[in-house]
Amino acid sequence: MNKDNSEFLARLASIAADIEVLLKQLLDDAPLEGEIFRPARLVAAMRHAALDGGKRLRPFLLVETAAIFGASRASALMAGAALELVHCYSLAHDDLPAMDDDDLRRGRPTVHKAFDEATAILVGDALLTLAFDVMARSRVHPDPAIRVALVLELARASGFGGMAGGQMLDLAAEGRFAPKRTLTESEVTTLQAMKTGALIRFACRAGAILGQADAAARASADRYGAAIGQAFQIADDLLDVEGDAKTLGKAAGKDAAAGKATLVAALGPAGARARLKELVAEADGALAPFGAKADTLRAAARFVAERRT
Amino acid sequence: MNKDNSEFLARLASIAADIEVLLKQLLDDAPLEGEIFRPARLVAAMRHAALDGGKRLRPFLLVETAAIFGASRASALMAGAALELVHCYSLAHDDLPAMDDDDLRRGRPTVHKAFDEATAILVGDALLTLAFDVMARSRVHPDPAIRVALVLELARASGFGGMAGGQMLDLAAEGRFAPKRTLTESEVTTLQAMKTGALIRFACRAGAILGQADAAARASADRYGAAIGQAFQIADDLLDVEGDAKTLGKAAGKDAAAGKATLVAALGPAGARARLKELVAEADGALAPFGAKADTLRAAARFVAERRT
Repeated sequence: MNKDNSEFLARLASIAADIEVLLKQLLDDAPLEGEIFRPARLVAAMRHAALDGGKRLRPFLLVETAAIFGASRASALMAGAALELVHCYSLAHDDLPAMDDDDLRRGRPTVHKAFDEATAILVGDALLTLAFDVMARSRVHPDPAIRVALVLELARASGFGGMAGGQMLDLAAEGRFAPKRTLTESEVTTLQAMKTGALIRFACRAGAILGQADAAARASADRYGAAIGQAFQIADDLLDVEGDAKTLGKAAGKDAAAGKATLVAALGPAGARARLKELVAEADGALAPFGAKADTLRAAARFVAERRT
Repeated sequence: MNKDNSEFLARLASIAADIEVLLKQLLDDAPLEGEIFRPARLVAAMRHAALDGGKRLRPFLLVETAAIFGASRASALMAGAALELVHCYSLAHDDLPAMDDDDLRRGRPTVHKAFDEATAILVGDALLTLAFDVMARSRVHPDPAIRVALVLELARASGFGGMAGGQMLDLAAEGRFAPKRTLTESEVTTLQAMKTGALIRFACRAGAILGQADAAARASADRYGAAIGQAFQIADDLLDVEGDAKTLGKAAGKDAAAGKATLVAALGPAGARARLKELVAEADGALAPFGAKADTLRAAARFVAERRT
């Protein structure tokens, strides 16, 4: 397991570095064909939102799943960059004063703090739009049928029936629009499957689509994605309860203070840890057909479930 | 010209009615494959933003341009619905307090007034995402290469090098981020080509792409789209100076009050009217190769230039 873990950490770092290079290129000042002009302030704010950030877990899952099916690494990285742009847009908008009102993200001021609210709204809009631009480019895959399938699935995972809808449910769970009530475990699970699960699951599905995996293999990748997505959210909620602002790079204890719906609140910390173990086993089970080729994804599930920062 | 105009108005109304039906279907409660759940409040707010609204000029231009090249009307309507979703998202976000802070749109409360600010941000995000979902669907065209080309061009027209960038320039022109200075005519033209021109131009390009027009015909459609896009913006700015809230369905005189950069400010109302005439002639010139098949588009250019509401 130690060898697996160092191999995993090396690959995670390597993919994050490659994604950083791609995002820098994508957020260049020079307009492309079909564009007119890229305003300097908007480009700077988009870079603030997208560069030097996070572990790039979603692109990692996409690239590593694609690798199982023999897809080109360059293709998978480009699709991973598109996916990461969607993730970064969602953070910029979720942090806005009208939404979660956060001042810190990854240890730095959030976009509306570093710039201003109008700029942060436009940053999110432009990152989301750029994500679909990138996913439609031939560098993602020579076959347009595969690119258009990725565009469609990314939109479904991110839209009102996925991530954006999940943020709506999260705000509702705070009691913003009606008297607050405690969500059932099943309601919390749905909320989280939408808010964070959908994009993580898409990462694994996208790898299988890029690798032109058969239906059975796609279903396995999907099952793995669903399990690691749930594990990610539970670990995140545990961190919010047990972490501190210094290690998190963002305010701690905010979920409890806002009365956010989490499985830690529903199951208690011990129940949540037990659920994490089940989800790691579920992830392992889903990866069984892929043998040793999926070792890095196995290590990823453990890493996500056990992470402390 | 009267006959042309009644024919044009009939087609405009007919396409608007068809787009309304499509948008209602697209904004249904029931989740599609790849979605989990569509929250009722978000769906209601998206419908508020997208239904019963406007003349649907962009879908009209897309459908009528596509018709010149013999594309299927059902295909063009679906692509037009995707385009209209982008337009509606941009209105919901532009109206936000942090942006243009508008209370009225099309004679009704803006999304953040009818609902709240967080919901209005999510509405815009979800409409934009849905636009790419719709454009990627096989109902737009059986050939995925055409759909992916439309996705790419729509993203370029809407993103930081197009519409979103134009809104950034517009905020900057108000003096938000640096001491206010008067924009040159060329700077105003660039701003407007991005903020409103890019999407109108895309409508005409998309019609040509759907109709698999050759390069020369695409260039003609593009030239027409650029001309009618400019005319649209100048007519809009004239209306802001000369209209009133009752006929506009939104606050009048806001541009002047906000010191917005317009060509009416740069050229004066008479100069702006002269420019409108030139643009109608330019639009006519661009349509010359298409003969009588383009009569409705000719009438559209005159309608846009002369509109009073």
